[in-house]
Amino acid sequence: MAQVRPFHLAAFMRPVGIHTAWWRYPGGFPDANFNFAHLARFARTLEAAKFDAFFMADHLAVLNMPIEALKRSATVTSFDPLTLLPALAVVTQRIGLIATASTTYEQPFHIARRFASLDHLSGGRAGWNVVTTSNPDAARNFGLEHHPEHADRYDRAHEFVSVVKGLWDSFADDAFLRDVETGIFFDPACLHTLDHQGPHFSVRGPLNVARPVQGWPVIVQAGASEAGRQLAAETAEVIFGAAGSLEDGLRFARDVRGRMERIGRDPAGLKILPACFAVVGDTDEEAREKRARLDGLVHEASAIAALSIALGHDAARFDPDGPLPEIPESNQSKTGRERAIALARREGLTVRQLAQRLGGYAGLAMVGTPRRIADEMQAWAEAGACDGFTIMVSDVPEGLEDFTGKVVPELQRRGLFRTEYAGTTLREHLGLPRPENSFFGRRDGLAGDSGPTGA
Amino acid sequence: MAQVRPFHLAAFMRPVGIHTAWWRYPGGFPDANFNFAHLARFARTLEAAKFDAFFMADHLAVLNMPIEALKRSATVTSFDPLTLLPALAVVTQRIGLIATASTTYEQPFHIARRFASLDHLSGGRAGWNVVTTSNPDAARNFGLEHHPEHADRYDRAHEFVSVVKGLWDSFADDAFLRDVETGIFFDPACLHTLDHQGPHFSVRGPLNVARPVQGWPVIVQAGASEAGRQLAAETAEVIFGAAGSLEDGLRFARDVRGRMERIGRDPAGLKILPACFAVVGDTDEEAREKRARLDGLVHEASAIAALSIALGHDAARFDPDGPLPEIPESNQSKTGRERAIALARREGLTVRQLAQRLGGYAGLAMVGTPRRIADEMQAWAEAGACDGFTIMVSDVPEGLEDFTGKVVPELQRRGLFRTEYAGTTLREHLGLPRPENSFFGRRDGLAGDSGPTGA
Repeated sequence: MAQVRPFHLAAFMRPVGIHTAWWRYPGGFPDANFNFAHLARFARTLEAAKFDAFFMADHLAVLNMPIEALKRSATVTSFDPLTLLPALAVVTQRIGLIATASTTYEQPFHIARRFASLDHLSGGRAGWNVVTTSNPDAARNFGLEHHPEHADRYDRAHEFVSVVKGLWDSFADDAFLRDVETGIFFDPACLHTLDHQGPHFSVRGPLNVARPVQGWPVIVQAGASEAGRQLAAETAEVIFGAAGSLEDGLRFARDVRGRMERIGRDPAGLKILPACFAVVGDTDEEAREKRARLDGLVHEASAIAALSIALGHDAARFDPDGPLPEIPESNQSKTGRERAIALARREGLTVRQLAQRLGGYAGLAMVGTPRRIADEMQAWAEAGACDGFTIMVSDVPEGLEDFTGKVVPELQRRGLFRTEYAGTTLREHLGLPRPENSFFGRRDGLAGDSGPTGA
Repeated sequence: MAQVRPFHLAAFMRPVGIHTAWWRYPGGFPDANFNFAHLARFARTLEAAKFDAFFMADHLAVLNMPIEALKRSATVTSFDPLTLLPALAVVTQRIGLIATASTTYEQPFHIARRFASLDHLSGGRAGWNVVTTSNPDAARNFGLEHHPEHADRYDRAHEFVSVVKGLWDSFADDAFLRDVETGIFFDPACLHTLDHQGPHFSVRGPLNVARPVQGWPVIVQAGASEAGRQLAAETAEVIFGAAGSLEDGLRFARDVRGRMERIGRDPAGLKILPACFAVVGDTDEEAREKRARLDGLVHEASAIAALSIALGHDAARFDPDGPLPEIPESNQSKTGRERAIALARREGLTVRQLAQRLGGYAGLAMVGTPRRIADEMQAWAEAGACDGFTIMVSDVPEGLEDFTGKVVPELQRRGLFRTEYAGTTLREHLGLPRPENSFFGRRDGLAGDSGPTGA
């Protein structure tokens, strides 16, 4: 086997399971994504398993789906990530805390301030998942008739991230003297006023928060589209890709690392952690049965709608218990159509089973024993397709505890995953350097102006 | 003595002391306003004293003062309130948590969502201090060349608050069924889409958070200006006024209650808690000395600048150790000028002492033994000028512990303040009703869709 560096694990936690039927799984907590006691327990379980980060997705509108599907969705009520994560910071000590926030519907000053505050409160554990927001309904919650175009959103995102970093650097790391004798609270020579004027934003600054413990909270992105990949190559430190297979993942990693090299960025400064839905069983058969049971809880109306979208054809006309008929080509969603057909043929699924699979979770999945899952993960890492994974558990608490209690120990036995945190910050967990201050440079030996974390 | 209803206490906690020299006071923690461990301790101390609320002020820019004064200000780094309060929610059980948020530089959807999230996380303890932002420098952190005019800001504030309340009412209290058998997560008949179209905001909704535990988090306002009083009369449930004397306070209370009656609002739905700077001593002399010591820590440059502003004259020309000379009238700040002159004459202050008083904290202060302070507070309440106070302690931890450990017991002995919380929510502490849902009316016997608070 090739030499593989120890890798990283984040847990993608909203909804607590990505599968649309997670909340119906037997033995679970149907309100788990909106119940702080449960969320605190999950964060502590992930921390005990030495996960790099608890990663919270987000939406700025209820999902745009027909009411018949929406009424079955656990996503309609969930916490604002930047409200939940400060609370989770208090009940954990080491695990990173990554919140999603939109560059399309937020203001850089607010975002810089909130992540800086979270980073100080948590002792350097904050990460920002930079999104441009894909749900077009968000626009109508923020005074816009139409969601801005993709290119405009990414243009704005570039400038937004740069403004936020500039604001984080408002104070040198050693600005705060708090000299009781002289009455000088900070050294004015250590204060930088950004005075940014750009096409999307005019932001004077300075930020009224000390420089974050990590310098900058860790920048995370999905990096899916062309513009997204370019933004990620330029600014991301973690990517949770959506590659559907090892081959896809490898192509994606090469593409993004190539983009980084072309702009002179060291690829070591980026960790690729593909999103992976994990279903664990003591035997492969048990894991497959668990997945089938979970898929079987997806309501047929939602499932058929998902299949119809994937195929570009009304799947309600097909016999649900028969095999997928031949589907003529259509203009729409060629990739989705081909993937759905291939999946049905490969696993011998009926129309209903295929629909429920797509309506449950259709992305990269690893289903099997801890050993099988560890083998697959190791193969990805050995191939150079990733630096770890962003795990989406099948259900809570069982699926979460199976992953942390069975897969993680297997990864640890192989030397692929830490058995103890070596550092205290998310950057240290990920092996990412602390950025220099753009205006004041490096000041070694200074830990930043951080209040103690403990309560 | 007249019959006085038990009254309410909030603690105004940013900076942790309002006095500009609090951080230099001997025996204190100079970093207390930016150190979570200290802030958690203060919140728990206030909770042990049964305070209604921990109240966090805010600024959206560093204060607009000359760098010579700014470098002496502890306000330049502090936590975003909506990041700090979720963390404090975890380390407390009962005390209310009031965060300041601006209607001028925020979006209603974000604000509705964050306060709803905080209310659920804290088990119904959230309050929103609605401000229009007075620091004109904030504009330049949010893409505006000029701070919007006062009237425009208040116009926007009215609409903003109404949109936020509409969003909080997106779901009926009993909307969430989470029926694992049928797969129905919520009853679509219990979902209201706001579809607001107004002069300042277009917001479709619904909010993607369940209705807050309190129905609506408690609405707090300063209510100082004419427009502010009207907004408060129409929407506030708590006012922390800035009256400088009992007579002022009484006039203010009558004015606001009159406005409420004219629009048909029951004055019982509003609690007036004037801001009060408290300096406690075991003797009156000790308290006065403490205040003089604190004032003496205000740097002369900052102090003279504050005095010059108050007088409308350059006070640097006066002999600092002499009495205040006769000051000719000027166009500016008539009230401030008259107040400063009266204060100097009444207390026999030198120019320096007067300047340091104004540069420290110039508003309503109660200085003396616990008994004297309790007497003054009782007099306000008996006169009908207030329902309690928003306390600003002189320093931390000493000033905070003197208030909670000495003044509160005196108020409790007089039957003016609770010795135990009777309810669990901030509304219950304040004796405010839980608002009906504007779209679904009252549904009694339902506690709202709240996750447990504990960790």
